[in-house]
Amino acid sequence: MNTFTTQTLISAAEVQKLIRVGLPVTDDQGLEVTAVSHDAASVRIPYHPRQLRPGDSMSGPVLMAAADAAMYALLLALGADQNEMALTSQFNCHFLARALPGDVIADARVLRQGRRMAVLQVEVRTTARDDLAALVTGTYVLP
Amino acid sequence: MNTFTTQTLISAAEVQKLIRVGLPVTDDQGLEVTAVSHDAASVRIPYHPRQLRPGDSMSGPVLMAAADAAMYALLLALGADQNEMALTSQFNCHFLARALPGDVIADARVLRQGRRMAVLQVEVRTTARDDLAALVTGTYVLP
Amino acid sequence: MNTFTTQTLISAAEVQKLIRVGLPVTDDQGLEVTAVSHDAASVRIPYHPRQLRPGDSMSGPVLMAAADAAMYALLLALGADQNEMALTSQFNCHFLARALPGDVIADARVLRQGRRMAVLQVEVRTTARDDLAALVTGTYVLP
Amino acid sequence: MNTFTTQTLISAAEVQKLIRVGLPVTDDQGLEVTAVSHDAASVRIPYHPRQLRPGDSMSGPVLMAAADAAMYALLLALGADQNEMALTSQFNCHFLARALPGDVIADARVLRQGRRMAVLQVEVRTTARDDLAALVTGTYVLP
Repeated sequence: MNTFTTQTLISAAEVQKLIRVGLPVTDDQGLEVTAVSHDAASVRIPYHPRQLRPGDSMSGPVLMAAADAAMYALLLALGADQNEMALTSQFNCHFLARALPGDVIADARVLRQGRRMAVLQVEVRTTARDDLAALVTGTYVLP
Repeated sequence: MNTFTTQTLISAAEVQKLIRVGLPVTDDQGLEVTAVSHDAASVRIPYHPRQLRPGDSMSGPVLMAAADAAMYALLLALGADQNEMALTSQFNCHFLARALPGDVIADARVLRQGRRMAVLQVEVRTTARDDLAALVTGTYVLP
Repeated sequence: MNTFTTQTLISAAEVQKLIRVGLPVTDDQGLEVTAVSHDAASVRIPYHPRQLRPGDSMSGPVLMAAADAAMYALLLALGADQNEMALTSQFNCHFLARALPGDVIADARVLRQGRRMAVLQVEVRTTARDDLAALVTGTYVLP
Repeated sequence: MNTFTTQTLISAAEVQKLIRVGLPVTDDQGLEVTAVSHDAASVRIPYHPRQLRPGDSMSGPVLMAAADAAMYALLLALGADQNEMALTSQFNCHFLARALPGDVIADARVLRQGRRMAVLQVEVRTTARDDLAALVTGTYVLP
């Protein structure tokens, strides 16, 4: 899924640059776009102890920020020209297992893409554990 | 709603201190807890241009982080001893109107509180506009 | 909220007829549209013992069907000509309190209405209890 | 996934009987439980023209009722004695593609099972089309 395809007109490095410029807060977090394809994208946010919450789990907003960035990376890969202005209409997150301290990995894929709307799903893990920490679905209104 | 009550055993300042220590990332953002009561809590995240996304709206993760902090503040106000370890099980966010640049204000209230689970709702706005920018519901498993 | 306004071009009775013809299953359930306005609509599904689940609460799908019908009634009231073909893109339901046996009442209102998308919220109760049994948000793609 | 395992103490036929008795409305719809295992369950609701909505798609509440029944079947398979009283706390449904007229098939699996809470996911299709018509997640409080 997360491999480059011949249809891909924009590389992971280019997507990363667009996101880091467009969303400076992701630049502050050291966000890396590790793979993009025509129907999937993966990002990584490096671990920092300030991301922890009481109980030494990764805090929820860090996992959600990774999911948001992975979906945005996928939308840019699908069509950077228009989709930079895509609007999130809904963001749903199930927290499924404790997120042990580690880099946050978010893998997004397309559930449905219409002309006016896209529904994406993201699996979020940390590098400390194989179990899914969070499962996110996002709905986007396309320009 | 957002006023102190005689049942409140913990002040907004104390909740703010607990959150900033427990979630260092909120300290980095300058999070303020502006009010807590037995069934509501409000927080503010000061504006910074790095929070913007393309199109000069506030980025989604900033609004979601404010909602998350407001719910956590409310849980702490409801019972700081136990609820510091409350686990988010679900976080649902509808983005309703463009969030114009400004401080982010999140007002949380209790939809339902059981022994084992709490459901909270949060209204998120920026100081630039009265319209609701986002409406969040969160589900928590209580310790 | 749930009163007729001069802007309303279609009555509760007309909306009820459209729904019952368009969705025969609501006819089978005896659905009544009790009020429509330019930003709200209310429906009622009469109580029947077959709607119960173990524990003698009303079953979830009955509450969700009432919420769905209330949102559809509101969309029809907002523009019967076009919105009959509105597509539900998302339906989120929080069950908040046990639904004691009784008629199901669902009150829908507009959270946000854009050109291409509408977000509605519905409060669902039974006549046996004032407490909210369920809180639903629905997202619709408009034709 | 949807095969019987040696751990399964209750058959699809037994689960169907429990559901039809416990939820008479599913009996009216002719609900069949077609498979259960220790981590998955499948149900079918036979097609009836009264399930259609304008535009000749299957109406949303029928798809949601099938998803609800599949999750309930799975909970019963996981532990019929206790889980008959499991409470739905949340039900989220994304409608992904038009549901063409046909029997409704709902396949539920466990996303996470804790002591106090279970999160399930359901894929809903009709027999008229391979595409996913709806993707549902449900959260249950276990007794």
